[in-house]
Amino acid sequence: MIKKVDHIGIAVRNLEEAIKIWENLGLKVEEIEEVPDQKVRTAIFHAGETRIELLEATAEDSPIAKFIEKRGEGIHHIALGVDNIEEHLEKLKEKGFRLIDEKPRIGAGGAKIAFVHPKSVGGVLLELCEREE
Amino acid sequence: MIKKVDHIGIAVRNLEEAIKIWENLGLKVEEIEEVPDQKVRTAIFHAGETRIELLEATAEDSPIAKFIEKRGEGIHHIALGVDNIEEHLEKLKEKGFRLIDEKPRIGAGGAKIAFVHPKSVGGVLLELCEREE
Repeated sequence: MIKKVDHIGIAVRNLEEAIKIWENLGLKVEEIEEVPDQKVRTAIFHAGETRIELLEATAEDSPIAKFIEKRGEGIHHIALGVDNIEEHLEKLKEKGFRLIDEKPRIGAGGAKIAFVHPKSVGGVLLELCEREE
Repeated sequence: MIKKVDHIGIAVRNLEEAIKIWENLGLKVEEIEEVPDQKVRTAIFHAGETRIELLEATAEDSPIAKFIEKRGEGIHHIALGVDNIEEHLEKLKEKGFRLIDEKPRIGAGGAKIAFVHPKSVGGVLLELCEREE
């Protein structure tokens, strides 16, 4: 079951400058974390039940670096919070969605995550995310 | 005060096809509405406290048609739910944000909305949204 929008991932060139922008908008940065697996450094803000995650590349071959090179800074992905990610992935596979991750891996904050290819979701890079609350 | 992510706007070429995708992902379409002011037809899904709004252009000069022409289908904007939009806009103006709408106008579902230019928000088209719940 889809419970909520868990987070919105935003690709930024410079994390410190981007943090200032989002603080000026009226949000507070809660945490800064490095996720080596995805070659990003992330700053996390809370807006109600959803997190805003600013993502800065830590390597030239980071997916975030490639995204910015191609499209510039901006919204990178949205993540839906689900309660049983393995079951949900299985259902999406049956329905013909193209999965980037067939099995969940561990993302920021220790959540189980998996990406669905934007080609299956009308240009939206979609993440599923299961998190212990 | 920012209360939540009110909605995520997604630009789509064909609303009916896009509705099928999001229903296959596990969400239910709640409403289909035309917003003549923005020259869009929108299908609304609920994910927790956030709406997913699929946006199809109803005219060639619709902002959604221009977006798709330039960048293809995908995430168009995010909207933060605030409790006093006039006050919030005033604060953003003082802080130097470039406002597309200096005064709120009426969007989908009768909400008061105003857009902030992506140049001020690191490439993110941001909407503020005040809604009677």
